[in-house]
Amino acid sequence: MATFSRSPTANAFSFVLIGGTGDLAMRKILPALYAAHRDGTLGEGGRIIPVAQTALDQDGYIQWVNEHVKPLVAMVASGVDDDAWLSFLGRITYVALDASRADDFAVLRDVPGMLRSQRIFYLATGPSLFVPICEGLAAAGLTEHARVVLEKPLGHDLASSQAINDAVGAIFTEDQIYRIDHYLGKEAVQNMFALRFGNVLFEPLWRREWVESIQITVAEELGVERRGDFYDKTGALRDMVQNHLLQLLSIVAMEPPHSMDADAVRDEKLRVLRALKPLREEDIRQNVVRGQYRAGVGGGAPVPGYAEEPGVSHDSVTETFVALKVEIENWRWSGVPFFLRTGKRLAGRVAEIVVNFRPVPHSALGAMPLRAGSNRLTIRLQPNESVRLNVLGKVPGMGMDLRGVYLDLAFDRFFLRDRMEAYQRLLLDVIAGRLALFVRRDEQEAAWKWVAPILEDWNRSPTAPKPYAAGTWGPAAASALLAREGTCWLEEES
Amino acid sequence: MATFSRSPTANAFSFVLIGGTGDLAMRKILPALYAAHRDGTLGEGGRIIPVAQTALDQDGYIQWVNEHVKPLVAMVASGVDDDAWLSFLGRITYVALDASRADDFAVLRDVPGMLRSQRIFYLATGPSLFVPICEGLAAAGLTEHARVVLEKPLGHDLASSQAINDAVGAIFTEDQIYRIDHYLGKEAVQNMFALRFGNVLFEPLWRREWVESIQITVAEELGVERRGDFYDKTGALRDMVQNHLLQLLSIVAMEPPHSMDADAVRDEKLRVLRALKPLREEDIRQNVVRGQYRAGVGGGAPVPGYAEEPGVSHDSVTETFVALKVEIENWRWSGVPFFLRTGKRLAGRVAEIVVNFRPVPHSALGAMPLRAGSNRLTIRLQPNESVRLNVLGKVPGMGMDLRGVYLDLAFDRFFLRDRMEAYQRLLLDVIAGRLALFVRRDEQEAAWKWVAPILEDWNRSPTAPKPYAAGTWGPAAASALLAREGTCWLEEES
Repeated sequence: MATFSRSPTANAFSFVLIGGTGDLAMRKILPALYAAHRDGTLGEGGRIIPVAQTALDQDGYIQWVNEHVKPLVAMVASGVDDDAWLSFLGRITYVALDASRADDFAVLRDVPGMLRSQRIFYLATGPSLFVPICEGLAAAGLTEHARVVLEKPLGHDLASSQAINDAVGAIFTEDQIYRIDHYLGKEAVQNMFALRFGNVLFEPLWRREWVESIQITVAEELGVERRGDFYDKTGALRDMVQNHLLQLLSIVAMEPPHSMDADAVRDEKLRVLRALKPLREEDIRQNVVRGQYRAGVGGGAPVPGYAEEPGVSHDSVTETFVALKVEIENWRWSGVPFFLRTGKRLAGRVAEIVVNFRPVPHSALGAMPLRAGSNRLTIRLQPNESVRLNVLGKVPGMGMDLRGVYLDLAFDRFFLRDRMEAYQRLLLDVIAGRLALFVRRDEQEAAWKWVAPILEDWNRSPTAPKPYAAGTWGPAAASALLAREGTCWLEEES
Repeated sequence: MATFSRSPTANAFSFVLIGGTGDLAMRKILPALYAAHRDGTLGEGGRIIPVAQTALDQDGYIQWVNEHVKPLVAMVASGVDDDAWLSFLGRITYVALDASRADDFAVLRDVPGMLRSQRIFYLATGPSLFVPICEGLAAAGLTEHARVVLEKPLGHDLASSQAINDAVGAIFTEDQIYRIDHYLGKEAVQNMFALRFGNVLFEPLWRREWVESIQITVAEELGVERRGDFYDKTGALRDMVQNHLLQLLSIVAMEPPHSMDADAVRDEKLRVLRALKPLREEDIRQNVVRGQYRAGVGGGAPVPGYAEEPGVSHDSVTETFVALKVEIENWRWSGVPFFLRTGKRLAGRVAEIVVNFRPVPHSALGAMPLRAGSNRLTIRLQPNESVRLNVLGKVPGMGMDLRGVYLDLAFDRFFLRDRMEAYQRLLLDVIAGRLALFVRRDEQEAAWKWVAPILEDWNRSPTAPKPYAAGTWGPAAASALLAREGTCWLEEES
């Protein structure tokens, strides 16, 4: 139970945030650390040491935080508590150094408390700096018993991912490495563990005998925004499928772990990833849909097509949408299709997992309503986390008319506490040394290995992605993928 | 699908209500017929012919209905619609006759439409009149293709029940006989069919592998009221267990029927009743608790004990409370205890079925909350019909703390229509010739056969019922019955 213990032990720590003036630090990491501080869950002895290659000094950095981070914190419902904000700033010690120069890291040794405390190095930088940073930290003698946090993208294919893992692994052991996939920090994902393994009701149904198909959707309404340059070299398969969607899939489909210890959980996830049915060339043509958005509507206004976005090549064949049919070759899931999709500029912002159960084997009650009304469990990760069980109930009155109704797990009715942001939870896990919600090297590499044939096929293939209008649910081929199996994406039902 | 067809075919009928000035007619049957009339579900050609041995004429009877029935109708939420009430009264033709005299029934032949319409004879009288009434109807030549509705009590043991069934069966075939158990007309009971057989989710769990125990409670707050004389000769076992509780049990435990045809459903219920584990003398001592209320509290005021009630013998050993552990000897339920209880002057008015699922076989999530928090499906029949699924969910925040939460099937959110009163539904079923929700002779006799050893043991036994204070949940022995199996009645949990 070390990894899921009830009270986080947040002792004295030095949280070194490398990339301290970057977008991720500003939008996610510093707000999450502030929220933990305000909630009293960030250990009192903890220090935050942002590191960047800028001309700022301590005062200048604090001013930057006040200007850039505070307004973001103020935007969330709970707002800024002025006393908490001031004491939070008091934890910060800014250090200027050039992360590409190994020698520069020695200066960190002089930061008060650094040598005696639990060191955490959060690499909120591009992956090209991961190796020099690790080498610099090693040269400065700071790596022993330290923890290192890596953010995506961890490479752009199996080989580059292995290269990063080899280099980081030469300096840190696997149990010092925290690969962040922030979807794993969401309450709804945690609740999937609770529902499946804390209740006897779902596990007997969670298998091929009773499940007809499973859908995992991570849909974005936004386009590539200011990331056109990065995105055009990446695409949706690398940016979303290889990591987030396959991670969610591995959690939905995993066998019950013997405990919640980090490796017990990750062993089971790995078994799923290794059991994914490999895609041959003809499978890719049939079961993988890639799309790219054209001009259309976003946020109620006309928006340009992907190829017109800043930073994007005009003849780009980068996919902004992927839909796949995935199969898992084991006893539990054989023959059950898992439909995954993700994309930008879609008709809604939603992340959810839908477990579609089979129809009843025999209808004693007469003609049943359309399959749309079959039993379904929906676990929604965003925009609002919820669990809903769709069943058929009897319409009151004479006869036995059935209609789709649902049972809601109304979290708000039971829990007055705010849910924690995914980053806040994951950062506290790093500080407490809990690895369960971080991706292990073998998982990451199994996922790269599985997507590799798709990347290769697309490289070889002359066919461009299928177009879809911004503000729709992607190309028609994504619907056809499911229609062939007699089903449809959830949003198309009602 | 004849028995559950969507629109009731209520053609021309003559609804002969024998016992037309009795308590049942006043409180249940006439209000239910009025409600069906008001809702437009009572076929236009239908006539109501109340029959009683009184000096009333037609005007006098209408006056009696206005005085005694209308105020009861006005008390329910929808109230009285004056136009509908007047047209309802226009359907009534009162006939005075002495039901104990076979010759008197000839007069019914002269009621307009009687011979051409679908005749329904509702025997809202004591069972001692059933045989003379049937003989009178036969002598008058009115029984062919007619339907006869029998109300409880249908005998006081197996022999007397067989005698009634033999006598009625000499005149009416089994498919002309509608034995009413009004619990079967409740929406929540209908919904049990819908949930179990219209959804794939519940049936795989509905068996010994996943169910730990099932509780069926029908608790009343009232005492014997004005029925002391009748009740003292009857007791809770005959009044409630042999019929209502065993009927509910048979529906909870039945195998899926191949259709909702009357005999398909009743065949499956019968199989359950025949599979009830017979009670030997030592089982009765151990698994059956009988109780009798003493003075205590009822409706917030002091109330007398049972033996002080009007009409009750001072040294009565009649039980006003029964709790039983019942087992079903088949593959699905072997070893799963069914706990039944019913009683008067209990701490609440509630009728519900509770399916307690087993705990998870292995807790990967660490220490689980107390068993009270296990998974549970509660189907409530009264005071308000509802379905609730208790599961464990994760408390938001760090750690994996679980807490009991529930998913509610909120009928009101989905169905704006009023639910129908049980009697209204059942009367419309009689008029339409749907037998599925009426008790077949073999079911009734199997139930009598199963309770017979208890009745015999109590007759022989010198031990009096265990006392309990009015306003409590019955004698302590009823709790001990469950404690021995490591469980408790639902109301004792929280």
